[in-house]
Amino acid sequence: MSRLAISRSCQYRIARCFPLVRSFSTTHCRHEILDLSTLPDRISPKYKESSTSSLLSLQWPEPPRNILIIPKLLAPKVTASAASFASHIHNEYPKLNLVFERRVASTIHESLPFPIYTSDPTHFPNKIDLVTTLGGDGTILRAASLFSLHSSVPPILSFSMGTLGFLGEWKFEEYKRAWREVYMSGSRVAVADLQDPHTQVATNSRSDEDEGDLHSSWGGVRGKSMGLTRSSKILLRHRLKVGIYDAAGVNVNEQLMPTSTAEPQQSIPKIPDLRHVGGVVEQPLASRQFHAVNELVIHRGPNPHLAIIDVYVNNHFLTEAVADGILISTPTGSTAYSLSAGGSIMHPLVKTLLITPICARSLSFRPLGLPLNTKVVLKLSEKNRGREIEVSIDGKRRAGVTIGMEIRVEGEAVGRTPDGSWAGGVPCVIRSPSKADGDRDGIAEDDDGWVGGLIGLLKFNYPFGEGQ
Amino acid sequence: MSRLAISRSCQYRIARCFPLVRSFSTTHCRHEILDLSTLPDRISPKYKESSTSSLLSLQWPEPPRNILIIPKLLAPKVTASAASFASHIHNEYPKLNLVFERRVASTIHESLPFPIYTSDPTHFPNKIDLVTTLGGDGTILRAASLFSLHSSVPPILSFSMGTLGFLGEWKFEEYKRAWREVYMSGSRVAVADLQDPHTQVATNSRSDEDEGDLHSSWGGVRGKSMGLTRSSKILLRHRLKVGIYDAAGVNVNEQLMPTSTAEPQQSIPKIPDLRHVGGVVEQPLASRQFHAVNELVIHRGPNPHLAIIDVYVNNHFLTEAVADGILISTPTGSTAYSLSAGGSIMHPLVKTLLITPICARSLSFRPLGLPLNTKVVLKLSEKNRGREIEVSIDGKRRAGVTIGMEIRVEGEAVGRTPDGSWAGGVPCVIRSPSKADGDRDGIAEDDDGWVGGLIGLLKFNYPFGEGQ
Amino acid sequence: MSRLAISRSCQYRIARCFPLVRSFSTTHCRHEILDLSTLPDRISPKYKESSTSSLLSLQWPEPPRNILIIPKLLAPKVTASAASFASHIHNEYPKLNLVFERRVASTIHESLPFPIYTSDPTHFPNKIDLVTTLGGDGTILRAASLFSLHSSVPPILSFSMGTLGFLGEWKFEEYKRAWREVYMSGSRVAVADLQDPHTQVATNSRSDEDEGDLHSSWGGVRGKSMGLTRSSKILLRHRLKVGIYDAAGVNVNEQLMPTSTAEPQQSIPKIPDLRHVGGVVEQPLASRQFHAVNELVIHRGPNPHLAIIDVYVNNHFLTEAVADGILISTPTGSTAYSLSAGGSIMHPLVKTLLITPICARSLSFRPLGLPLNTKVVLKLSEKNRGREIEVSIDGKRRAGVTIGMEIRVEGEAVGRTPDGSWAGGVPCVIRSPSKADGDRDGIAEDDDGWVGGLIGLLKFNYPFGEGQ
Amino acid sequence: MSRLAISRSCQYRIARCFPLVRSFSTTHCRHEILDLSTLPDRISPKYKESSTSSLLSLQWPEPPRNILIIPKLLAPKVTASAASFASHIHNEYPKLNLVFERRVASTIHESLPFPIYTSDPTHFPNKIDLVTTLGGDGTILRAASLFSLHSSVPPILSFSMGTLGFLGEWKFEEYKRAWREVYMSGSRVAVADLQDPHTQVATNSRSDEDEGDLHSSWGGVRGKSMGLTRSSKILLRHRLKVGIYDAAGVNVNEQLMPTSTAEPQQSIPKIPDLRHVGGVVEQPLASRQFHAVNELVIHRGPNPHLAIIDVYVNNHFLTEAVADGILISTPTGSTAYSLSAGGSIMHPLVKTLLITPICARSLSFRPLGLPLNTKVVLKLSEKNRGREIEVSIDGKRRAGVTIGMEIRVEGEAVGRTPDGSWAGGVPCVIRSPSKADGDRDGIAEDDDGWVGGLIGLLKFNYPFGEGQ
Repeated sequence: MSRLAISRSCQYRIARCFPLVRSFSTTHCRHEILDLSTLPDRISPKYKESSTSSLLSLQWPEPPRNILIIPKLLAPKVTASAASFASHIHNEYPKLNLVFERRVASTIHESLPFPIYTSDPTHFPNKIDLVTTLGGDGTILRAASLFSLHSSVPPILSFSMGTLGFLGEWKFEEYKRAWREVYMSGSRVAVADLQDPHTQVATNSRSDEDEGDLHSSWGGVRGKSMGLTRSSKILLRHRLKVGIYDAAGVNVNEQLMPTSTAEPQQSIPKIPDLRHVGGVVEQPLASRQFHAVNELVIHRGPNPHLAIIDVYVNNHFLTEAVADGILISTPTGSTAYSLSAGGSIMHPLVKTLLITPICARSLSFRPLGLPLNTKVVLKLSEKNRGREIEVSIDGKRRAGVTIGMEIRVEGEAVGRTPDGSWAGGVPCVIRSPSKADGDRDGIAEDDDGWVGGLIGLLKFNYPFGEGQ
Repeated sequence: MSRLAISRSCQYRIARCFPLVRSFSTTHCRHEILDLSTLPDRISPKYKESSTSSLLSLQWPEPPRNILIIPKLLAPKVTASAASFASHIHNEYPKLNLVFERRVASTIHESLPFPIYTSDPTHFPNKIDLVTTLGGDGTILRAASLFSLHSSVPPILSFSMGTLGFLGEWKFEEYKRAWREVYMSGSRVAVADLQDPHTQVATNSRSDEDEGDLHSSWGGVRGKSMGLTRSSKILLRHRLKVGIYDAAGVNVNEQLMPTSTAEPQQSIPKIPDLRHVGGVVEQPLASRQFHAVNELVIHRGPNPHLAIIDVYVNNHFLTEAVADGILISTPTGSTAYSLSAGGSIMHPLVKTLLITPICARSLSFRPLGLPLNTKVVLKLSEKNRGREIEVSIDGKRRAGVTIGMEIRVEGEAVGRTPDGSWAGGVPCVIRSPSKADGDRDGIAEDDDGWVGGLIGLLKFNYPFGEGQ
Repeated sequence: MSRLAISRSCQYRIARCFPLVRSFSTTHCRHEILDLSTLPDRISPKYKESSTSSLLSLQWPEPPRNILIIPKLLAPKVTASAASFASHIHNEYPKLNLVFERRVASTIHESLPFPIYTSDPTHFPNKIDLVTTLGGDGTILRAASLFSLHSSVPPILSFSMGTLGFLGEWKFEEYKRAWREVYMSGSRVAVADLQDPHTQVATNSRSDEDEGDLHSSWGGVRGKSMGLTRSSKILLRHRLKVGIYDAAGVNVNEQLMPTSTAEPQQSIPKIPDLRHVGGVVEQPLASRQFHAVNELVIHRGPNPHLAIIDVYVNNHFLTEAVADGILISTPTGSTAYSLSAGGSIMHPLVKTLLITPICARSLSFRPLGLPLNTKVVLKLSEKNRGREIEVSIDGKRRAGVTIGMEIRVEGEAVGRTPDGSWAGGVPCVIRSPSKADGDRDGIAEDDDGWVGGLIGLLKFNYPFGEGQ
Repeated sequence: MSRLAISRSCQYRIARCFPLVRSFSTTHCRHEILDLSTLPDRISPKYKESSTSSLLSLQWPEPPRNILIIPKLLAPKVTASAASFASHIHNEYPKLNLVFERRVASTIHESLPFPIYTSDPTHFPNKIDLVTTLGGDGTILRAASLFSLHSSVPPILSFSMGTLGFLGEWKFEEYKRAWREVYMSGSRVAVADLQDPHTQVATNSRSDEDEGDLHSSWGGVRGKSMGLTRSSKILLRHRLKVGIYDAAGVNVNEQLMPTSTAEPQQSIPKIPDLRHVGGVVEQPLASRQFHAVNELVIHRGPNPHLAIIDVYVNNHFLTEAVADGILISTPTGSTAYSLSAGGSIMHPLVKTLLITPICARSLSFRPLGLPLNTKVVLKLSEKNRGREIEVSIDGKRRAGVTIGMEIRVEGEAVGRTPDGSWAGGVPCVIRSPSKADGDRDGIAEDDDGWVGGLIGLLKFNYPFGEGQ
């Protein structure tokens, strides 16, 4: 297998590239887990509008270098796929650095004959250029949650390991083409479609290239002569900013954040300058906010009594919800919990936040959609009598709130910056059609996968009676 | 414990005091809490059909004697109302024995200048002739839950302390008339409407009657000459029988039952013949079943993953529900949790059980209604991976179930017995209209309160725009 | 009209041909359409309860003779199937008389080499022993509508020409077995399963039997020795009785009924004793009621203003519905229009009628289920200002109603008669499992097809993501 | 009354201002109906963003002159209120020209002692500066429909004659303040609050002003010294552009438009230059589009069969809807028909269009929300077999469509123009709080009336049990 050749060149490079890192006795570079802090800082791409699509175009100012790979947890087949993907990247794009979460790294490094990187997740926002997920919606959510305290999220390229869903995922079998397209996006270098056999030959002959050039440019990547310039399509998913406040009006998010000390630190070299990492955080700690990709939920959980929640909209009292719970959802989240609770399905580009009750004790609490920039406050009134209500963000319990506490929610601003590109949200790389999808040609170019997800995943308006 | 001392001295005084009850010298008898076991066994009434109403008529074979009074908990005003009610009964119907739950008795006896009774709730089914609740729906549910292991429930007379609801409650202000009507029902003695001033005079002059007659007949109760025979209207509410089975198919209800040992037992005289008590229980212990008045709920509770529940209907596999939970509801429960979860509203006399999903991950899980005698099984498939799912009956958590366990649900049989009366269900006394409601006269006779509850309580089809 | 000539010559030949039916010389008798009035009167079967099933058993007191065959209209393939079915019946059960509606008879008689019968539909209730439909739900509804003015409906055996639905249909391929089972039901003669090759041989050798015996007994039907006694399972579907009343309280159903004069009458011999026919009609004409199998709908139709409908329940005012319309549905109808309007799905054996609004101008008009014997009145208030609201029964427009008019609806009584059998409703023969379905053996015996219809037809709770 | 004085000055002005119009014998100006064509062309205001509100500010470049007053039809009390309003305007702002629809003018002119204007509605878009409605939602829709073929709609000031609704209406009692505020908006002249008694006096003394100045400036309007500058808040309601195309792909809107010849023309002097009026139309006739403020509906109407509609979204096939109908709604329309059909409630500023089915034959057709600029096509497939399906826009039937025809819908562009103001949509003047509402002070400034409409009009989440 070509993997053997790879690891050979790998041994060579380790001596050259990382002489100082954990090398005391590592005669073989394989099976190494290196520390993320040694890698260069993050490169942020631009997202440009196009006249022909409601999706944006990804433009890297220079090639991305630090790639976070997030496979579904507890799924050995997916871990194996992640290893295949990582090997492909390492072989074909040797300058790239592959990063994994600690628990993944400790499992996967045994099967990878080259060094990988890890760190406490708090450092990812400062280092990661691009995220790749392998799994389903849950895995994408987990990826996004690593950046939930930050306003800037790297692009996320998602591979579905099963059914294609709503989030623009690629089929895993397409990973070579998908990666090539994302990596080259905006390079002004033509991207060859790897489906084409000639391209594959050209790519395979890459090994005699001067690798030094690859770092500073895309020049070494073959396919230039194919004549097709293609950039990755990006859908910026809206997020919700969520702050949890105690009865005195103090933001208590900070107390609820995942602390880095929760995971073993000894094997990781001390990060020299923590303030540097802190520099990524754009907000004073006191007002740090969680960002939700799908939804904020408050729910009575195991409490036998219904939650009683006062809902305010732009400082106006809207209603007292008496319910199992209440959801504030993004349009992306409209096909998640909000859908189960009876909410309408919203396209992810609609700038709205949805208020959907969960089993309200009412005949007349219809789901609501408000402008994304609406300030919604959920407050626990005195009537809750000491009950603790659960607060979850994107399916993860974050806090228990009690009388007088409130949750403030507002859509994250997503929009044009002065330089004409876009900022905010979660930049999701949307699968582009291959030649095999070509019968839909021009039309498919603008496909954001949403209609496909409705039909294929949700069985939207599934017809009566026509077979199983 | 002082409770021990009281009941011991009470046993002594019971023999001494009983013939003298309400004599001016029994100052020491007040504030007593006596033991329920000393009272005679339960009298079961008949429920007869009428040609003019879908409601049944209550017929006591002899006057009821042991009255369980259940006020809303933690509501001092309601406790005070219960004391007023108890005093009225004691004064006007001195042969009656007033029973309270232990925790209520220990509070209320201080304000009552006559002895009251209590016991462990397991003995109520054998002793209680009639239940009176003061509170709302929750209080009625609590009353019914005291009989949840038994197929025969005494009639329940309910007083609403606020809004009249669905369950046929009487206004508390009507308690004299309500009580008189229930107590005399089927006695073939005319019942005077206490609203009438002349009747009130007659009743007040009752004290010179020979009280001895009161015990064995209704003869001493005035009002005979009023010429109006009226019997209480009964709505038999359907219940669900619920069995929880472990993975080996063994019924584990027994392990989940409230055990009497949870409360101090020493003060309660040993019940001489347990089989006699057992005589009320028609089922061998191994197959004892909970009876739900509103619903059975299984819910993931604080579990972050959706529950995965295989639903069988009369041994046919119906569907795999992936949801927060699932409800099996009586028609009475259709206006409780099932309503919040999106179910239709069913009249309590419709013989149906409702399957309503709670936040199903599906676009096509519409609420279902099945014949009441359908056997529904909810089974936790292997896919739940060790999660524990909460099982609640009428709002009270009863168990956590895990893979392989199943819950079997079936409507309780309610219907005609060979002697032409009805059996099964929860016999709820339905408020009858007073003369003040008379403008609806003949029509109102058949009023089961359901339409009133829809409009007044649920604000069913509340019109747009017409004021607040 | 040629139809006139045919039936006239037929009258002549009826006298001549009848004794000779199926003689080799009656070549001229084929393609005949004879008049239904010459046939013997209807035989009514019994419906007996069984201890093992919630379905009833069909018991013919003597073999049925007059079979109405109703194929889907405007569907040539179905007409061809109907001809095949008719030929099979004619060949194997030669004493049976096959009846068709006029418009069907005029088409199909050309392809049938034996006489068939027809008449004005008003005479069907007096003559038809059993109805067979070939088509879908619409065809069954059409069949039932022929008896919509009568309280007694013959059993209906339905063949699905496509997907099996809710109504217990048989697959058309099973028609030999299905017919045999229905015809023999309750005969105490063992029914051979025609799937068995030996049986088929036996049946095929029937032709040398003495046919005379067939008419008065089931003795000639082979298979006796098979040892399996099987009776057809019947589900009595509840119907709604509907009366339309003008502002003066006069029932105007009569004016809205399909009159027999709408079709040419000359060719039909005068029915000698109209009172005999009238004997089937249990109600004086003035109070004749439509019977709905699915639902009554009132709808604004093309009217630009919402309908304003006062709804009364057992003489209590329930609500003023402001809506496109309102549905009163049987449980059978709960999977028809009511489902589309958001109603719950009810099993056909639940004794309920459903009130489901159609696009109500309200947030709080939840669908309702009432006991089947509830009297529901829909009244057009003055606020409708002269608009005409459409009234439809089972999908067929019946009237336009205006201010002051009302529609009175009540479930038809279905239940035990003094002799222990059941009466009322629409007796639908429910498909019984064949040996090919045998893996579900004992369980399948009680299958009423409802769960199968939910899953196979309605795609109830269709799972997310698992392929198409 | 002052009205006498007004009509005197009126006579004078007529001679001066309109010497050529129908003046042959009009010695009295009262009861005159003059032709709109003689008035100056429309003045278009700007709509400016504010940093403190999501609402826009109305800025007149010069005072509006031609005011269209639209009272609810067939409501004599509202007509009387319209007359009061008109008289007030005429008295206090004598340079303004009051315009009515023909059928209104012919009724109301009898009660107005000054001339009014009318014309065929096709000329309104070229002449009307501002629209005032008196009535409810239906009246506002009627007003908007007069401009349904045009991309530019004058501001609409709405007075509710009953309950305040969703559309930002003013109470009719507030009309003096409301009018003053709108008229002066953006004038940089301080607006006195007419609630203040001193202001009223000042205003009443206006009559000695030089009226000539009033025409070209707001200088003559008193209140300047009050020191409070206030501008009217505008909510631009999104509309949908709707094109109806025949099977050949030809836009047939033109054939469906209301023609001016439908109303009697004789009494109205010939409009001299029709092309001038046509100049308002910004689109070539072939592509003229209807604009819907609430929704487009296609519905089977009186057709007994369900409509079968292929739905395309941005050229992707989404689904085949089998239903009574389908709605494409604006967010404003989400509280109209879409709400009745089960859609979520959207705030009018959410840029979305909603697809809501009407009684779909499906368990899984959940309402959808798409970006407002989505191209939705509804196409009648062959399966409709010649049925005609009704197309309505904002509650008014516009066409019957048949097989092969399609309806193309897309949100109207609403947004910033290069000069920083906003264009598109229906500019609705939103009620601003008076001093009487002052307890909500700062907060209320940003109130768009939506929350109030939810609670007060729709009874959103109306609480259970708390009185009527």
